[in-house]
Amino acid sequence: VAVNEAQTKHLFDNRYGTGQSTVDGILRATNILLAGRRCVVAGYGWVGRGIANRFAGMGARVTIVEVDPVRAIEALMDGHQVMTAGDAARWGEVFVTATGNVNVFREEHFRVMPDGAVLANSGHFDAELDLAALTRLAEGHIREVRNDVREYDLGEKRLYLLAEGRLVNLGAAEGHPAAVMDMSFAGQALSVEYVAANHAALAKAVHVVPADIDAEIARLKLEARGITLEPMTEEQLRYTSSWQQGT
Amino acid sequence: VAVNEAQTKHLFDNRYGTGQSTVDGILRATNILLAGRRCVVAGYGWVGRGIANRFAGMGARVTIVEVDPVRAIEALMDGHQVMTAGDAARWGEVFVTATGNVNVFREEHFRVMPDGAVLANSGHFDAELDLAALTRLAEGHIREVRNDVREYDLGEKRLYLLAEGRLVNLGAAEGHPAAVMDMSFAGQALSVEYVAANHAALAKAVHVVPADIDAEIARLKLEARGITLEPMTEEQLRYTSSWQQGT
Amino acid sequence: VAVNEAQTKHLFDNRYGTGQSTVDGILRATNILLAGRRCVVAGYGWVGRGIANRFAGMGARVTIVEVDPVRAIEALMDGHQVMTAGDAARWGEVFVTATGNVNVFREEHFRVMPDGAVLANSGHFDAELDLAALTRLAEGHIREVRNDVREYDLGEKRLYLLAEGRLVNLGAAEGHPAAVMDMSFAGQALSVEYVAANHAALAKAVHVVPADIDAEIARLKLEARGITLEPMTEEQLRYTSSWQQGT
Amino acid sequence: VAVNEAQTKHLFDNRYGTGQSTVDGILRATNILLAGRRCVVAGYGWVGRGIANRFAGMGARVTIVEVDPVRAIEALMDGHQVMTAGDAARWGEVFVTATGNVNVFREEHFRVMPDGAVLANSGHFDAELDLAALTRLAEGHIREVRNDVREYDLGEKRLYLLAEGRLVNLGAAEGHPAAVMDMSFAGQALSVEYVAANHAALAKAVHVVPADIDAEIARLKLEARGITLEPMTEEQLRYTSSWQQGT
Repeated sequence: VAVNEAQTKHLFDNRYGTGQSTVDGILRATNILLAGRRCVVAGYGWVGRGIANRFAGMGARVTIVEVDPVRAIEALMDGHQVMTAGDAARWGEVFVTATGNVNVFREEHFRVMPDGAVLANSGHFDAELDLAALTRLAEGHIREVRNDVREYDLGEKRLYLLAEGRLVNLGAAEGHPAAVMDMSFAGQALSVEYVAANHAALAKAVHVVPADIDAEIARLKLEARGITLEPMTEEQLRYTSSWQQGT
Repeated sequence: VAVNEAQTKHLFDNRYGTGQSTVDGILRATNILLAGRRCVVAGYGWVGRGIANRFAGMGARVTIVEVDPVRAIEALMDGHQVMTAGDAARWGEVFVTATGNVNVFREEHFRVMPDGAVLANSGHFDAELDLAALTRLAEGHIREVRNDVREYDLGEKRLYLLAEGRLVNLGAAEGHPAAVMDMSFAGQALSVEYVAANHAALAKAVHVVPADIDAEIARLKLEARGITLEPMTEEQLRYTSSWQQGT
Repeated sequence: VAVNEAQTKHLFDNRYGTGQSTVDGILRATNILLAGRRCVVAGYGWVGRGIANRFAGMGARVTIVEVDPVRAIEALMDGHQVMTAGDAARWGEVFVTATGNVNVFREEHFRVMPDGAVLANSGHFDAELDLAALTRLAEGHIREVRNDVREYDLGEKRLYLLAEGRLVNLGAAEGHPAAVMDMSFAGQALSVEYVAANHAALAKAVHVVPADIDAEIARLKLEARGITLEPMTEEQLRYTSSWQQGT
Repeated sequence: VAVNEAQTKHLFDNRYGTGQSTVDGILRATNILLAGRRCVVAGYGWVGRGIANRFAGMGARVTIVEVDPVRAIEALMDGHQVMTAGDAARWGEVFVTATGNVNVFREEHFRVMPDGAVLANSGHFDAELDLAALTRLAEGHIREVRNDVREYDLGEKRLYLLAEGRLVNLGAAEGHPAAVMDMSFAGQALSVEYVAANHAALAKAVHVVPADIDAEIARLKLEARGITLEPMTEEQLRYTSSWQQGT
């Protein structure tokens, strides 16, 4: 069962959790002022848009690098700029990768980034930044300048890598807040329970988390926050179901 | 072909287009100040979240009424309040429906709304507000006080209905901006072309708009705005496709 | 008595009122989509920052043109871009002046603005845009294309002037909402009362609105919105006054 | 010379610096998720509005407690709620004081706060929270549960005090970012230089920082960020000065 694809996982954990904890990790590592800062986020999936939203909420200006045209135009209409990686490398001061892909920023980009640029990764692996190229360009002039901050001196400028290019929200902060992880863990627990109860009927395959489980997790979360949902009236239930039947 | 379900339709037209044009319609009809105003949006689908986002962007405080727990918690984490329709009716000053359902606000809610409350609809039909109940409660004390603003005098208070409960962005403003409709129309045109080219191979059914068409529309839109997408490198394409194959 | 300088006037009328009504005027005149739009605001006083804030709230990207360095850096830290008028003219799609000065955008700027650029004024007079230069450049190719929208065809491109360069929130919308004007009018009325009561003691000069009047207006406004202020305790009053005495 | 009153100090250091570093301090100490959180800020001066703005930017809902009616209505129009300290105590989950006054939250408030409430101070001294009352209510059930987090167990609930009630941005984070402090230090240095150069002509009194020094600091800061100000034309300078002379 693909618990990572549950709505209550990817909507909340990835978007709200990683958004905050990435900003948190960057602040803990560098203590830079984000207001007025030029921040580049590579990838506008759930993680990327969470980070972009929080950067903007701290007063930064945000540029998105995307390969997907629909996501790119969404970023644009959300008030962000959209650039190629090359243009963004020249423009930005803080760079965060959240693509799930490899070598998003690489030699050609490091060469044109401004002095003092900060590099961090919030995607899956530490492969989103081409660290081999960064090390090669620094020719041995590499040192730790603060906890979780490694300086690469390229001669004409210095670049700062956070948390060794590993997930900055885990490396330099504490990962997701408990208020987010509880939803992810609930998804895992209820999915295991679901498999235990239904394994006879389930084919050998990757199954989506049943919508019922997502709804149940969300309902428990709302209840814990003292919020009562609006129930549908009988009339509304009839209207909804008749509409779904296409009559 | 369900052109209304195209990503470039529901993401942009419904969210960004209706968000702006609903606010526009309310301002044209009433000229009320939105800063500091208590605004209730029923429904947190694409349309509802577009409206909520724009209300917040004008300095209003927003409460969402939802029946779906996942959407409700999403609204909460986006910084809005979530209430039942009954609590929201007591709290709000401006009410907009965007649910696609019927009688979202009805007699029990009209009775507790404050004097001067403004009612508008941005959902599908004019059935989201129970207009029969509103008319009955006013006992004939109904009059037009401005263009697109109808006053219902309930004795102890007056409620104001915009655009006769029809879509307020069409009734009191001009509907979507051209910059949004071009994407929707492109989706329709390219879908017709697609059907013409492929009808022999298509079963009799409702088909989703092919992802290629969505991507093509978004690409054209980006090009028109002078934006170049980041292309994937060979290495990245290989990484992506190998990941999708699960190797 | 300089009623225009009252806090309850310039904070609210100028900032919140003009911010909303300028956006409203532009939408009524043009029906353009603001999400993703590049908007330039000249001047970052109360009016300018109100407009900038509302543009950003509608999903636009905002560039500020300023002559004052403190205001410029404030704009920057509020998340906007800061450019010279020349750079902004090349970058922008919508231009609003709010400087109180003359010829902020003039021939050199009109020449480099993109095709389709929209020009509006929310400052004091219709002198903020150099209309004589615009007319000269169009060489007679001027026509009304919508209510409050005048097209200037410069051959290689067309520029669109709103409300004849007069205040766009009055020309193309309805000016300030009543909820803002009540505070301004209260300031005028209470100031007249103050002058009537104290004229014997007042020297012939421009007087500031007494802080008491500002506080009284704000108190009445809060009361009308059902809000109770936190009162200071005896201890807090003592602490505050002792601190003011520098002990 | 009142360097703390320089525009480049109170606008930037207090507002942007403290806003970010207060959020940073709370996150480091607690790692709570701010999205959807109910946050109370006491005081809507420069520090308070900076904090409120950043809380909102992280997806929190914000309530302001104020004694000044003009500031209260400003908070309201900025999209926040305004409540008395008593109502806010019942409503909130996170409480930050930024008033410069004493005992803003005290026994009567601690008694009604919800279980798990977080208390922090970003005002001048550690007197804004009535720590003596908090200690008394806990009757010895006090312990450190994390770095900079002290639990007060009141029997029916637990309250969490950050950084011993001292400035949370210094106690639990690193204070202002360098990008803000440089402006404050520049103000101090240039003010000392000014005093040294002009002491003969200055009366014994508290002097405001000359506007020239503020402008110079802002200009240097803009230059360091690669930004060129728009200069006034001869015509604009004439217009401005003639207006200031009232002709």
